Amino acid sequence: MSELAPIRVVVLGTGAMGEGIVRLVLSKSGLALVGVHARRAERVGRDVGEVLGLGEQLGLPVTGELGTLLASARPDVAIHATCSTIADAWPEIETLVGHGVAVVSIAEELAFPAARAPALAARLDALACERGVAVLGTGVNPGLVLDLLVIALSGACQRVESITATRVNDLSPYGPTVMRSQGVGLDPGEFERAVASGEVVGHIGFPESIAAIAAALGLAITRVEETRAPIVTTVPRRARFRRITPGQVAGCSHTAVGFDAHGRALVRLVHPQQIEPAAEGIVTRDELVIEGVPRIAFTGSPEIPGGVATIALAVNLIPHVLACRPGLRSAAEVPVPAALVGDARTALARLGGPRGG
Amino acid sequence: MSELAPIRVVVLGTGAMGEGIVRLVLSKSGLALVGVHARRAERVGRDVGEVLGLGEQLGLPVTGELGTLLASARPDVAIHATCSTIADAWPEIETLVGHGVAVVSIAEELAFPAARAPALAARLDALACERGVAVLGTGVNPGLVLDLLVIALSGACQRVESITATRVNDLSPYGPTVMRSQGVGLDPGEFERAVASGEVVGHIGFPESIAAIAAALGLAITRVEETRAPIVTTVPRRARFRRITPGQVAGCSHTAVGFDAHGRALVRLVHPQQIEPAAEGIVTRDELVIEGVPRIAFTGSPEIPGGVATIALAVNLIPHVLACRPGLRSAAEVPVPAALVGDARTALARLGGPRGG
Repeated sequence: MSELAPIRVVVLGTGAMGEGIVRLVLSKSGLALVGVHARRAERVGRDVGEVLGLGEQLGLPVTGELGTLLASARPDVAIHATCSTIADAWPEIETLVGHGVAVVSIAEELAFPAARAPALAARLDALACERGVAVLGTGVNPGLVLDLLVIALSGACQRVESITATRVNDLSPYGPTVMRSQGVGLDPGEFERAVASGEVVGHIGFPESIAAIAAALGLAITRVEETRAPIVTTVPRRARFRRITPGQVAGCSHTAVGFDAHGRALVRLVHPQQIEPAAEGIVTRDELVIEGVPRIAFTGSPEIPGGVATIALAVNLIPHVLACRPGLRSAAEVPVPAALVGDARTALARLGGPRGG
Repeated sequence: MSELAPIRVVVLGTGAMGEGIVRLVLSKSGLALVGVHARRAERVGRDVGEVLGLGEQLGLPVTGELGTLLASARPDVAIHATCSTIADAWPEIETLVGHGVAVVSIAEELAFPAARAPALAARLDALACERGVAVLGTGVNPGLVLDLLVIALSGACQRVESITATRVNDLSPYGPTVMRSQGVGLDPGEFERAVASGEVVGHIGFPESIAAIAAALGLAITRVEETRAPIVTTVPRRARFRRITPGQVAGCSHTAVGFDAHGRALVRLVHPQQIEPAAEGIVTRDELVIEGVPRIAFTGSPEIPGGVATIALAVNLIPHVLACRPGLRSAAEVPVPAALVGDARTALARLGGPRGG
């Protein structure tokens, strides 16, 4: 990578996240969008500007052939926004790393892949080290609110007894898929069955966040317990695509607790997701509490918005993934994310310059 | 440094900070205290345990000869807690780096030395690079609350318009030196004269925090303006060493604003320091607000306590300073601080292992 040329970026994914990432990449100094990859065949071959509704042609066709794209576009870094699991992401990330391209991924499991896929994580780490590039997972949650911010605050602690981090958000703007995955509109009995069948999943990312905190602090967490309980509304509530009545489920209160070998709850993460929480006077927020010396409690309200912030993190971490040591990296192993206000090449130089290339 | 042997630590300074740091180092797995250096001649030669009131002898005498100490103790890292300015710290840090010892310093100016002492900062960076070790400044403020946490939160922003960070604390427990430096007990006229004469200094660290934020985000700040205004009490207030009556000064409201070349205020840092703020219903807190996309607002109340947290940060960052690339580093250039709950050697391995030695 030349120090003067812009950083060459490809984006994988043309959904809501991919679109936001493309728009943000285009707005930043020092970044050049050199390719967009889509899984959806009907988008391939059309201009990126048209597919993403940017209001102008970019002269850049969406491609479906990743290897061909990488060979011709020669990107420095890819932002990966196509899926949630490492298994699903594997072929794309393997191809990227194989071409010597650094990767920032918003796949939830990539935030701390060793939590649920240690074998794939080890393979990916070895491959990335061999090719001299880094792969970094990010996102608002997992990736920031319920893990990285907690870790950063713990840096001010002489001792840590336990951690409780809560994120209360509002699902009202989301579409039917999210409504289903959180059980919105079910009755409580249906909700329990839908949890058992795996149709209601709640939040994706608790094992990753707990493992990230445990690794960073050196907490000896040996077991994680997750519970998914229905949030039953007592008042009518409405969302963009759904109305519910008292007695129906407004969402999923998903909790994960990490225990040590003595059964002590060291980390408790709480993430109730529901439509229109304000209808029952519930304030959306991110609330981080460390019981220790000193006790630290921080609250942000409303919560950091998920989509907007995940897009921001993916782009803001481009300098970080290019500067950090090769391998599979997590958020607490690289310098703190920072808004990319100035030129991305200056930000990269501040972090020590490119390592991979 | 062997991977199995504990990390060898020396502490410079035997004041309140040095004492707390020594106690914390002694409590951590994987750290070995191998020396303590004091500037105060009357402490030299006495046992560290006795001088610091640890309740037991450590079999380790306080030393006043840094070079001799380093040659015999062969530390991997030093925690430097003797002063506030880089000029004052220079001989000690030059000696440490010259002996190939990594340094974590709580000197306020070391949080971002290029802000006020660019020439010394450049010399120190060159020396540290040459010797293959890192020098890292830290502390609760500057170093965490009004800079690193702001930077980390900005990572979730697509755009940043302006930043306002406020820290409201309580000086009541502090001694006569702090009372004087904040103007406690003066009348407003005396306060203005004491600001002009430099007797009332307010907070040390605003230029460092603003420069750290500007560097991390790439903000084009060209001018910093600081103001120190008296906080005149309307009710009686009392502190450990001082009582004041209505009309007297309870402390110093110190503000710094960073402007761009167009005169736009990009960063506003506010730090009123006073005795017994609760007497007028003022809640102590850390409040971080980023106006941008998204808007982010986080508040921690009470504020993260200064002394306890600065001691924690100094020790918790030992793995970070050993793992990071050589040179003069600031907080946003290394991975986020994390409480050192487990073994320090494991924490160091997580960050990639020792680079310096």
